[in-house]
Amino acid sequence: MTIDTLLIIGGGLIGSSIARAAKEYGQAKTVYVADKSASACEAIERLGFADGVSENAPELYASQADMIILCVPPGRIGEVAEAIIPVMKDGAILSDVGSVKGDVIKQVTPFLKDSIHFVPGHPIAGTEYSGPEAGFASLFKDRWCVLTPDDADDGAVETVKLFWEGIGALVAIMEPKRHDIVLATTSHVPHLIAYTLVGTAVDMERVTNNEVVKFSAGGFRDFTRIAASDPVMWRDVFLANREATLEVVDRFIEDLSALKRAIRWDDGDALLEHFAKTRDIRRHIVDAGQDSAAPNFGRDD
Amino acid sequence: MTIDTLLIIGGGLIGSSIARAAKEYGQAKTVYVADKSASACEAIERLGFADGVSENAPELYASQADMIILCVPPGRIGEVAEAIIPVMKDGAILSDVGSVKGDVIKQVTPFLKDSIHFVPGHPIAGTEYSGPEAGFASLFKDRWCVLTPDDADDGAVETVKLFWEGIGALVAIMEPKRHDIVLATTSHVPHLIAYTLVGTAVDMERVTNNEVVKFSAGGFRDFTRIAASDPVMWRDVFLANREATLEVVDRFIEDLSALKRAIRWDDGDALLEHFAKTRDIRRHIVDAGQDSAAPNFGRDD
Repeated sequence: MTIDTLLIIGGGLIGSSIARAAKEYGQAKTVYVADKSASACEAIERLGFADGVSENAPELYASQADMIILCVPPGRIGEVAEAIIPVMKDGAILSDVGSVKGDVIKQVTPFLKDSIHFVPGHPIAGTEYSGPEAGFASLFKDRWCVLTPDDADDGAVETVKLFWEGIGALVAIMEPKRHDIVLATTSHVPHLIAYTLVGTAVDMERVTNNEVVKFSAGGFRDFTRIAASDPVMWRDVFLANREATLEVVDRFIEDLSALKRAIRWDDGDALLEHFAKTRDIRRHIVDAGQDSAAPNFGRDD
Repeated sequence: MTIDTLLIIGGGLIGSSIARAAKEYGQAKTVYVADKSASACEAIERLGFADGVSENAPELYASQADMIILCVPPGRIGEVAEAIIPVMKDGAILSDVGSVKGDVIKQVTPFLKDSIHFVPGHPIAGTEYSGPEAGFASLFKDRWCVLTPDDADDGAVETVKLFWEGIGALVAIMEPKRHDIVLATTSHVPHLIAYTLVGTAVDMERVTNNEVVKFSAGGFRDFTRIAASDPVMWRDVFLANREATLEVVDRFIEDLSALKRAIRWDDGDALLEHFAKTRDIRRHIVDAGQDSAAPNFGRDD
């Protein structure tokens, strides 16, 4: 048992999965969930994975918790931190799951006090669904969770690490700035591109009379899964990680322009050379246990 | 039984899947496969799904076939058509599976003769794997196969339609030009973008010391599956469908620039509006039976 009393603020896909996992894998004795939405609270109560549910975190639970994990959209982290830190008990740990670390730290820092330990975190896991019903206990199994503690107490970092490992995750420690550029590459820009392409195709749909949906199995359907992710969260991510996102997008546009040019000038060798080099990385990802080797992810079986 | 003697030229993922399906679903009495690669022929012989295998199609099988389906990369269609059409028997059907229809028709037309029926086709199905071992009989189940007959004999079109339906596909008839712009949207540009992004990330990998692979579950891994597809085939597709590909890529770049601008100018409303509209199309694709509704395609179960 890592934690005595755990409070999850924000009971969506990630928050509700952490709550479920903490109970199922015995990593917290008591798990409270707070969510500002009344309908989310009703759903959580009905699903029954929490020991208590409330629309009002600071007053009801924040003062009792040994660890609080903020699972709200990145844009709301600051206001929630401002409300709960003053009532947190001495020695308690504050963590989060925000996809951007530099901006989260910037938002939370003004409200910190010496008696609590802030250990920012980010589990690299999710699905295209959102809300409390979408969560499940095994979401973090074999997925990485990155912690970016700055001058946090070693004991607190160790506690957070053990908690994540206890619910199935692998833990990595990184600098916030490095986290944000790596994640811009592996997550933020892929999402931005998927959202863009699906939007482009929706516009083409007017031209093609529903044929985009009909013939989506040619590759397009993969992009629609990612572009079905939570719009509010992703709006916040792009704004919070503006600099790194724009840098990686610009590299991507340069590379796309080079391939466009090769197509326009009939340069088959340049295309082949590019396409051959991207095949290897798939094998590395499968070998690293980060994806299924089944054709089409096994979804057509 | 639709076909008496079927010849598949090119025994890779698609060709070997058609051969397997034709036998398994009883759509052809005799199935021959020809492939210019000796090692592919050995594999096909070992796998045992064909009634005969040869490195030399025109001399051995082309004169016996009632239907020949060309399953070679789009860039080789012309030379193969030139070699086999002269020896094809009167009344036989010639078809193909090329991802681009305008260019295939342009390549084949000079070699056509009145006594054979040319019915161009394109099954919208595949996986990220290639070669004879990668094929399987159910690849076309519930997937669309587009036929783009020009002035082909109605009976021949009907035969090809029945054959595809017999191996599980849904059949649509389209104009070649329309096919090429729709598929540029739903397949060619998605592949080009995936190849580009994975290449951009491979370059970033030098900066990030293998962390792209490590944290790929954040969205990136999806792109690597598509970018692991057959490089030779895709080189040929982009060159053969140059005009439509460049048109859709340009629309995509315009849309990406608009989102970039919204990020740069902190315009959260514009981002949210865009991200909300792309969610619906996913539901339509799932409702149309063209993708799995399971979170993450069910691959993490």
